[in-house]
Amino acid sequence: MEYNIVKNAKEIINNSSFVVKNPTNYKNKWHDLFHNHNKIYLELGTGRGEMIINMAKKFPNINFIGLELNENQIATAAQKLNSTNLNNIKLIHDDARNIINIFGKEIDTIYLTFSEPWPKRIDEKNRFTHESYLKLYDRIFKKDKHIILKTDNKGLFAYSLQTLSQYWYVFDVVSLDLHNDERNITNIMTDFEIQYYKEKRPIYYVDATFKE
Amino acid sequence: MEYNIVKNAKEIINNSSFVVKNPTNYKNKWHDLFHNHNKIYLELGTGRGEMIINMAKKFPNINFIGLELNENQIATAAQKLNSTNLNNIKLIHDDARNIINIFGKEIDTIYLTFSEPWPKRIDEKNRFTHESYLKLYDRIFKKDKHIILKTDNKGLFAYSLQTLSQYWYVFDVVSLDLHNDERNITNIMTDFEIQYYKEKRPIYYVDATFKE
Repeated sequence: MEYNIVKNAKEIINNSSFVVKNPTNYKNKWHDLFHNHNKIYLELGTGRGEMIINMAKKFPNINFIGLELNENQIATAAQKLNSTNLNNIKLIHDDARNIINIFGKEIDTIYLTFSEPWPKRIDEKNRFTHESYLKLYDRIFKKDKHIILKTDNKGLFAYSLQTLSQYWYVFDVVSLDLHNDERNITNIMTDFEIQYYKEKRPIYYVDATFKE
Repeated sequence: MEYNIVKNAKEIINNSSFVVKNPTNYKNKWHDLFHNHNKIYLELGTGRGEMIINMAKKFPNINFIGLELNENQIATAAQKLNSTNLNNIKLIHDDARNIINIFGKEIDTIYLTFSEPWPKRIDEKNRFTHESYLKLYDRIFKKDKHIILKTDNKGLFAYSLQTLSQYWYVFDVVSLDLHNDERNITNIMTDFEIQYYKEKRPIYYVDATFKE
């Protein structure tokens, strides 16, 4: 599986009503943008939006925001959304480190789905569960902190269990083989995940909370 | 690999100077028994003692106690020890639920090495990381709590990460593949583990603490 270059990616992004331009303008106003007070779930590194678009279809009473820096990927996500009339999902084309400028304390859950593992020690600070990121998340969670992480990467998973635990998150659910877990865990498979599933590669999952 | 029946197991146990008889007599007196004030590491379900005997050889300035209920296994451990002159290791032939009658607040670290996974939900309370056990451990830890768990069982590992985390333990080290972990984690392989290693089956590991 490979990412294709999307022709006119910039144009697609600019013309999409799903991609929020100047997202910093909506800091503390995302509920206004959605015209409701439903919960807001944010996915960092939303890629081509497979997970979040299907979540938005499945849970109409939750608002979803997918943030992605990669132009081709977010253009692909926007294209997919253009054929829907979902009103509970938005996309943001930005760097995850900007979330503190984009959101006030208005996020209920953060999804980290097949995040870049950054396996080299020197790149540790780029992992979405590095302490520097956990500190950013503190500033955008409405009240209780809630992170759902899913990955096929052993190293990133073990690392995240350490950093989340050391940051006082508590693990409500841990699975070392999500697709063969007898508990009924809500899961939407991405294209990558479907391929891993076929290859019988285990998917790791943790649902972590920090209750105020 | 199978456990053989040990002939004269009772006799071996009774005649071994390594097996502490009437261990409840030593509650709060284990340091006296060892004639020093070194740390005491306790392994619950020590089996045939492979891990703890090798640990005792490797770390002469730590005292080790292996507790095991199975008569054949503890007899095998005792036989192995009879050919050594180690003075920093003792065995206890008893049920793990008795630890609160055997120890005061004098244990530094608890090892759970390839513990029985008890996979059925109805047997959950028998898992050494069930909350009822964690409460027992609270009563024998000297000060900071410290548990090192190693298993090849996915279900037990995921379960233990949940229960330990929910009991406020913090994970200093998590590994989903101990034998291929680039960090230098002290590890003594049991016979089972050597076999798993040859079969390239991953070993799961967590080093968990609760600091007072």
